[in-house]
Amino acid sequence: MHIELDSPLDMHLHLRDGEMLATVAPLTSHSFSGAIIMPNLVPPVTTREEVLAYKERIRTAIGEDRFEPYMTLFFKPTYTREFLESVADEITAIKLYPAGITTNSEGGVSGFDIEELRETLGAMSDLGIPLCIHGETGGFVMDREAQFVPIYEKLATAFPDLKIIMEHITTKESVDALGRFENLYATITLHHLIITLDDVAGGMLRPHLFCKPIAKRPEDREALLRVALKAHPKVMFGSDSAPHPKESKECPGCAAGVFTAPIALQVLAELFEKHGAPVENLQKFVSGNAVNIYSVTPPAKKVVLVKKECTVPERYGSVVPMYAGEKIAYSIDKVE
Amino acid sequence: MHIELDSPLDMHLHLRDGEMLATVAPLTSHSFSGAIIMPNLVPPVTTREEVLAYKERIRTAIGEDRFEPYMTLFFKPTYTREFLESVADEITAIKLYPAGITTNSEGGVSGFDIEELRETLGAMSDLGIPLCIHGETGGFVMDREAQFVPIYEKLATAFPDLKIIMEHITTKESVDALGRFENLYATITLHHLIITLDDVAGGMLRPHLFCKPIAKRPEDREALLRVALKAHPKVMFGSDSAPHPKESKECPGCAAGVFTAPIALQVLAELFEKHGAPVENLQKFVSGNAVNIYSVTPPAKKVVLVKKECTVPERYGSVVPMYAGEKIAYSIDKVE
Repeated sequence: MHIELDSPLDMHLHLRDGEMLATVAPLTSHSFSGAIIMPNLVPPVTTREEVLAYKERIRTAIGEDRFEPYMTLFFKPTYTREFLESVADEITAIKLYPAGITTNSEGGVSGFDIEELRETLGAMSDLGIPLCIHGETGGFVMDREAQFVPIYEKLATAFPDLKIIMEHITTKESVDALGRFENLYATITLHHLIITLDDVAGGMLRPHLFCKPIAKRPEDREALLRVALKAHPKVMFGSDSAPHPKESKECPGCAAGVFTAPIALQVLAELFEKHGAPVENLQKFVSGNAVNIYSVTPPAKKVVLVKKECTVPERYGSVVPMYAGEKIAYSIDKVE
Repeated sequence: MHIELDSPLDMHLHLRDGEMLATVAPLTSHSFSGAIIMPNLVPPVTTREEVLAYKERIRTAIGEDRFEPYMTLFFKPTYTREFLESVADEITAIKLYPAGITTNSEGGVSGFDIEELRETLGAMSDLGIPLCIHGETGGFVMDREAQFVPIYEKLATAFPDLKIIMEHITTKESVDALGRFENLYATITLHHLIITLDDVAGGMLRPHLFCKPIAKRPEDREALLRVALKAHPKVMFGSDSAPHPKESKECPGCAAGVFTAPIALQVLAELFEKHGAPVENLQKFVSGNAVNIYSVTPPAKKVVLVKKECTVPERYGSVVPMYAGEKIAYSIDKVE
């Protein structure tokens, strides 16, 4: 039994910089055709020069792989139309972080006043630049995403031609919002299709499964699975694969992020099979829907997965992946 | 400003055994007059001989301190009336763990069939032995305690003269149950009066605040605070102080338990003061209510707390306490 996937895309990826970039970038560029690259470096990516320089560092890290890094800017409400026009050709999207909500998001947005956002979002809408949002409020950890839905709705209503991507959604409420606004889309991670808070904190506490947004309730996971498995045309795979060194995960104050890049396609294949979803749906979830939503033309790449058990490495460099040391059912046979 | 507390009691305490017992027992016996000692050793304490031997090891560990270890048995539905009569003088309570629900609870109860429990619970009721319960189901981690309330109610109804202590309650639902059944009581920990899931997993993940039951929502903490601060006559302080070596907390699968024994009275004094609750209420919460509920006569001990800032040690032996390295407002001035 084998599965062929054409030009898989990861529509939400953290590559970091420096040594970490060198470690993790090839793990994605090997099996994916492209990825939306998150801009939350320290300092964040906010200028044309920084976009170009970061893209160059990524290209160096991935070497010869056929892979397109879809670059993003870190959203600032001070971006002018003129600035956006000057950078539009170099970016695929702009990522908005509410201030302080996740790793390296200190400089994010702290209010969502439409008038304050009008110039920037209006220009993005006109220029066809999608807005990716980490949608969480500063509320109670299990409620943050659901509490953010009214903000998504406010933005979607005020800017009906702006494509708004609800990033790494984890709740039934976000899934429901997809159906209410034509211009709302979503990415879903691998881990949120698999785990709930029970896996993070229901037995032993498992820091390598700790992420933001935190994994939610079983009924939330079911809602995510439902739209992913049927390849709802408004949802895309975005791993949110987020590498942290082992010592930043196994410590008194553990960083948020699950590292799934090197195993994502294999585990997705297993998951879709387990739930009886057709391979065409997996193809749409990991590529076709994103191609339509973002109007991108990824490099041609065929990834052949075979049902052959393999053991996930304990580490990639300093990073512990999801399923470290465990067996998974699919392996990557070849990439053409 | 100073506060005098007479014969403070910790009605839910883990002392472990061996080296850990030697490290932690004196930290409680210094400032408390007595404590209910949990029986979940490996193997658990289930015989008269084991109770006596464990008590002797505790006495050795605490040395000269005036301190009463109130011993418990690990509940088994096979305990006969005859057995319970033979052991009644040596124990203060029996602790029931649903199977597999927390540290060293593998041999616990897996069904709550009243008829299967009738001989044991009937005899306990007749002999005046309170039943302490870790009340969680195997459900979703945030729902487990609320889901257990109907089991508390079933037991309280079937054995109306049995004193049932809902241990370390964490939810509004458990607080509400207190008022519905005359024979239901509760212990409340220090940490559940202070933290919510936000403190465990809302920012960085903090394994030293990870415990079972897991800290819940803000409205749950408010409900606990309400009954603790007014010293509701059916609630008692029980720290559930649970020592684990640092390496078992900062690792891929972190053990559940917060270590608060050496700072509990100081932080409770600060908490009651902060909320404007009178010292008499603190006295009842940490001693008087337990004396009434358990009909015990603890050794005389006066603990004098002064409002003098001190820094909590980073470690006690291998154990990282709550507030490690942080400042707390009260210190123990003397113990008489």
